[in-house]
Amino acid sequence: MSIRERIAAANERAADCIVESDPAWVDIMPAGEIVEGLEDHMILHSGPPIGYEDMCGLHKRGMISGALFEGWAASEEEADKMIKAGEIKISTALDHNTVGAGTGIITQSVEMMVIEDRTSGKRAATFPAEGPFQGGLCGWGLYSPEIAENLRFMREELFPVMREMIISMGGLPIKPILAEGMQMGDENHTRQTAADLLFDKKVLPFLFRMDQEKDRILKVIEYIVETPRFFHCYGQGASKAALMAAEDVEWSTMVTAVGGNALEFGIKVAGLKGRWFTAPAPMMKGRYTSSRYSEKDQLPWIGDSCVVECAGMGGLAAAASPIVCNLRGMKLEESIALTREMEQICIKKNHNFSIPNLDFDFLPVGIDIRKVLKTGIAPEIHGGMFNHEGGLIGAGSARVPMECFEKAMVAFAGEYSE
Amino acid sequence: MSIRERIAAANERAADCIVESDPAWVDIMPAGEIVEGLEDHMILHSGPPIGYEDMCGLHKRGMISGALFEGWAASEEEADKMIKAGEIKISTALDHNTVGAGTGIITQSVEMMVIEDRTSGKRAATFPAEGPFQGGLCGWGLYSPEIAENLRFMREELFPVMREMIISMGGLPIKPILAEGMQMGDENHTRQTAADLLFDKKVLPFLFRMDQEKDRILKVIEYIVETPRFFHCYGQGASKAALMAAEDVEWSTMVTAVGGNALEFGIKVAGLKGRWFTAPAPMMKGRYTSSRYSEKDQLPWIGDSCVVECAGMGGLAAAASPIVCNLRGMKLEESIALTREMEQICIKKNHNFSIPNLDFDFLPVGIDIRKVLKTGIAPEIHGGMFNHEGGLIGAGSARVPMECFEKAMVAFAGEYSE
Repeated sequence: MSIRERIAAANERAADCIVESDPAWVDIMPAGEIVEGLEDHMILHSGPPIGYEDMCGLHKRGMISGALFEGWAASEEEADKMIKAGEIKISTALDHNTVGAGTGIITQSVEMMVIEDRTSGKRAATFPAEGPFQGGLCGWGLYSPEIAENLRFMREELFPVMREMIISMGGLPIKPILAEGMQMGDENHTRQTAADLLFDKKVLPFLFRMDQEKDRILKVIEYIVETPRFFHCYGQGASKAALMAAEDVEWSTMVTAVGGNALEFGIKVAGLKGRWFTAPAPMMKGRYTSSRYSEKDQLPWIGDSCVVECAGMGGLAAAASPIVCNLRGMKLEESIALTREMEQICIKKNHNFSIPNLDFDFLPVGIDIRKVLKTGIAPEIHGGMFNHEGGLIGAGSARVPMECFEKAMVAFAGEYSE
Repeated sequence: MSIRERIAAANERAADCIVESDPAWVDIMPAGEIVEGLEDHMILHSGPPIGYEDMCGLHKRGMISGALFEGWAASEEEADKMIKAGEIKISTALDHNTVGAGTGIITQSVEMMVIEDRTSGKRAATFPAEGPFQGGLCGWGLYSPEIAENLRFMREELFPVMREMIISMGGLPIKPILAEGMQMGDENHTRQTAADLLFDKKVLPFLFRMDQEKDRILKVIEYIVETPRFFHCYGQGASKAALMAAEDVEWSTMVTAVGGNALEFGIKVAGLKGRWFTAPAPMMKGRYTSSRYSEKDQLPWIGDSCVVECAGMGGLAAAASPIVCNLRGMKLEESIALTREMEQICIKKNHNFSIPNLDFDFLPVGIDIRKVLKTGIAPEIHGGMFNHEGGLIGAGSARVPMECFEKAMVAFAGEYSE
């Protein structure tokens, strides 16, 4: 087989890891038990690896918050000192079986949703939605005693009931919900309105049947029903689990991770396991939640949630969601054209995701770094805009920097030259 | 004011009865109490008025079933005799504050969903979905002891709980559900997938909180969650209540009802209250549920559910639902073009229904018989195909026969000439 044939065959296998995946929400577990390699006194963050000194204020504060939340330090000063001294280690979420959505701060006692790809057996863990709680969210880089209390409430009051539920349900298949949701206007990155409702329909009757104190179940129902974008973590977990299977495919030029840490943006490639290829983090373009915000308030790209784009959703699924694209100033025709553009850099089509606005054609899946470089088309990624001080100030999109693909291609040529 | 100005002003008022309506599901009541003019020993049917002798087999059987269900007759033969003798009266549903979906058989003890337009105070009653029951549905023209037992189960076991729920909720607003559903692929005639889910989200937590025996509530939850197109009756009721307000507008050429009885198809017009304008019932074109069906198995148009088209949904909302249009063999572009075509025969746009696939333009509303005749464009109506023996054998669409509009225009000219 020529190199070209080997790569083509590997890419087919890697993309099929996504297409043939069968993700199910199977459990809720503390990060320390489910996230491989997450040690005691270790804090995960989003984006490619970065030193503490180089982190933006939001990531630094996340590190300190994590140390306080775990009780490793008694004060911010002490936490800062311990991290600087290496007594608390830092690591990037995407190098583990998890996803650093937003700031991506994950420590051992945070409870995580466990998604298993029943095709490959891979398990990924994602940080759950923090409920309808209005006091700011940890995932958006904020921290306060109230936020910590909300996390405790989730862990101690909600999740024992939900865990009993999901285990007695025997797991909840994620793909049918993604597929039907994408026929109802979700692109499953910025919008999961339909998926949330389909999820509610599956779990609410089950919760209702449980032999538990009514008041406890009611709290869980309120948490599920009232949380916007509740399903987001499941889409991320399903994507990550499938991409973990693809990471084992040598010779493949398929992208398996993309994410930013506000300083740098990085990608990973299936055939180059464990390596990052980075460029300066791009700024997102889109719409702010208030007219008082402008680009100066906005951090460069931070977060790993575009793992869903690696699995063929979000920006790649623009045609499925003119409602999301309109928020970015796009017309229906442009949203369809965007998915058609993304087809040019993808390995194949995903027969699971048939889209009404594409006259039931399938979404593209599997970003091939060779095709990106050949066409000059960079992947479109959707996401939320962060304020320097934390908090969400808008939603928009960006293109993955071309430099990431250039560096990856050089490395690939070095690794796989005959 | 010239006649032309008077008509324009009246049509604006009539269309605003729909645009400004505020429908809410407020109650569940026996048809005998909520349907005005529904007397003891009276059976309602769908479509324009028709004599018993002229009815298709399905309507005749519906009449007999109604008489048996009420206990007015002990046998089919006796029921047949009583109807022929005029001891049981027949009347057309659309001439009352209700809608004859399907065969439209309604008698006094059938429980109905009550929808109030809080703007006009008008109340309409619609026949509820018959649950996930698999033994055939009364609404599709079938009848058996099992179907009667299912109706009894609904009346005695489900509806007391649901009635308590909706009354303590203080009513459920219908329009937000219609509006959001139409941004998620529903056109709200053949498809209400999103509306069903949005409805579930509203009522399930409320049901859960009720102080009622768990098992009783569980039955209600199963009925709601497992019934396909549960929300259909609410969209029809919301439409009918708004159209009832419009029926009071003299000088208006707006269509307030359309429906068929398998023999004839008829329309009603706001400024010509109480009169029907009929033509032979059209055949629907679309897709059968099985390849063993063909046009010979199919009844001409029967049913009043295209009341939703009169209120600017269904066929008029084709652009909102490429998924429904695809089932009729249409591409996305054609579904958008169809709504644009319907704009040409409508009085105005409905600012409540903003559609992603129209780049957030609004749906048209208020069919004007003058515009239909001037453009030669007949309204597109969606619906279900009936077998001669009862039961649903497909879904499709038809155009309202032009002859109905021609007759109505002649009558209007006679009524309103100066």
